[in-house]
Amino acid sequence: MKLLSFRFEEEERFGPKVKKEEAVWDVLAVQQELQILPSFPSRLIEGIPQGMEFVEQIRKLTEAAAKSDNPEQFKRSFSNIEWLAPISRTPKNIICIGKNYADHAKEMGAEAPVDLVVFTKTPQTIAADEQTVSVHSDVTDSYDYEGELAVVIGKKGKSIPKQMAYDYVFGYTIANDLTARDLQSKHQQYFLGKSLEGSCPMGPYLVTKDEIPEAQDLSIVTKVNDEVRQNGNTGNMIRRVDDLVAEVSKYITLEPGDVILTGTPAGVGKGFNPPKFLKAGDTVKVSIESIGTLVTHLS
Amino acid sequence: MKLLSFRFEEEERFGPKVKKEEAVWDVLAVQQELQILPSFPSRLIEGIPQGMEFVEQIRKLTEAAAKSDNPEQFKRSFSNIEWLAPISRTPKNIICIGKNYADHAKEMGAEAPVDLVVFTKTPQTIAADEQTVSVHSDVTDSYDYEGELAVVIGKKGKSIPKQMAYDYVFGYTIANDLTARDLQSKHQQYFLGKSLEGSCPMGPYLVTKDEIPEAQDLSIVTKVNDEVRQNGNTGNMIRRVDDLVAEVSKYITLEPGDVILTGTPAGVGKGFNPPKFLKAGDTVKVSIESIGTLVTHLS
Repeated sequence: MKLLSFRFEEEERFGPKVKKEEAVWDVLAVQQELQILPSFPSRLIEGIPQGMEFVEQIRKLTEAAAKSDNPEQFKRSFSNIEWLAPISRTPKNIICIGKNYADHAKEMGAEAPVDLVVFTKTPQTIAADEQTVSVHSDVTDSYDYEGELAVVIGKKGKSIPKQMAYDYVFGYTIANDLTARDLQSKHQQYFLGKSLEGSCPMGPYLVTKDEIPEAQDLSIVTKVNDEVRQNGNTGNMIRRVDDLVAEVSKYITLEPGDVILTGTPAGVGKGFNPPKFLKAGDTVKVSIESIGTLVTHLS
Repeated sequence: MKLLSFRFEEEERFGPKVKKEEAVWDVLAVQQELQILPSFPSRLIEGIPQGMEFVEQIRKLTEAAAKSDNPEQFKRSFSNIEWLAPISRTPKNIICIGKNYADHAKEMGAEAPVDLVVFTKTPQTIAADEQTVSVHSDVTDSYDYEGELAVVIGKKGKSIPKQMAYDYVFGYTIANDLTARDLQSKHQQYFLGKSLEGSCPMGPYLVTKDEIPEAQDLSIVTKVNDEVRQNGNTGNMIRRVDDLVAEVSKYITLEPGDVILTGTPAGVGKGFNPPKFLKAGDTVKVSIESIGTLVTHLS
């Protein structure tokens, strides 16, 4: 199921993409109008802890809508909605993994790390698909893109065994871990250079895990103004999704709605000679197989 | 005003310390019983954005209580309350400054950094005064203390000029930035080694800024089992409070309830030869002049 969060007539809503149509089922409208599933969560992040049961409820609502007298009343055309990031109110920072593709570590002039490199971005960095975000030329002259597979946690867990890791995953989305390279290096710790406002576009969809049986064989392509810059595959991660969930949860408790950014493949702007950093007017598109394309405009 | 958060009869409350008594005014009880100030916030973090107006309201409530027929009914003895961290539900991570005292940078074998070293701890790390927290011997053998002055932000701001910085400060508390040294170094980024559960004891009081006219001349002493380990003064910070507020807000928007940990002076366990790391059974006391003493038990 391809879930998306959106704003329609001033209200924040969510629902699954209507198959083969450029529209979304407004499941909250279905619930209200047809008066079914009274305890259905009013926000996506509230449903995530219920896992596949929540996905089943969404399916029931869309089936009821499709069978109703007037299914069209429950569809919102993509041209009439404002897209929101699928997870936009996570209470914690976003957990990011550094140097998790060997080819990217190499282009950054570093060895692939033996131990996890983990840092955070603040929730204020989250931006939606098609959103315009600043290149922050007042504080950086080397703003860079990093296309990444983002894992959305569905269940609270500490010291999760690797073989159980996928039980704790709700689904996947795409993230662009926008980074001020000068700040990243001169401040030693990555936090500041990774936390400029709007520096974590996410979306367009949160795809439930049942639709992605193999998360480690997805092509991931990043284009800047339609020039291909990153062309990788999630199969090339050094630490794989199950490993990341197991390792991070050794130290901190993972909670539903937490997002793990799994690192970026080679081809970032800093890897070119001379570097190809972002400038106002650029458009970045990150595409991951089976998930979609996340579009970000720079200003 | 020395504010504290506490639990009394299963409910989370807050109020100012009763002068010269080991008790706190339960201002929510005053408000309810005497039916005054109907819009008074029910949580400390909700009042902070109102700044000194909020402090004035608290003063009015305590004066009304003192003048009432039975002032004692509004006092809660320290022996009957459970202490909570003054800020315990910050929606964002805690912002920490590394190597901000030259003597500490030196004992860590590092130069004092030219640019800010900024990292985060998760909100789950927050622990209250007198709380018992784990030394996490399953994942670290070098758990260390760092006594620090913590600045509580009172007003939302971005790119705050240095000379306006104190307008954005609500008050001060004490923090112990507990750190797994082995994780801190082997993972490169500090986040994981700084975010083990319970690794950010804070309290006992949130002291409003009017009581601390000079934040840069406070003695700060850390004892482990009554042996003095750190004996510094906030006057020795490399980057001072106004500088930190100005610098951090260049990059990220500060919000009411955000906490900035300002770094630790020399004398951490790792600075000794051989190192003196924490072990189960130890008690750490961090005392800062005009604020109080934060006590943490290790298990």
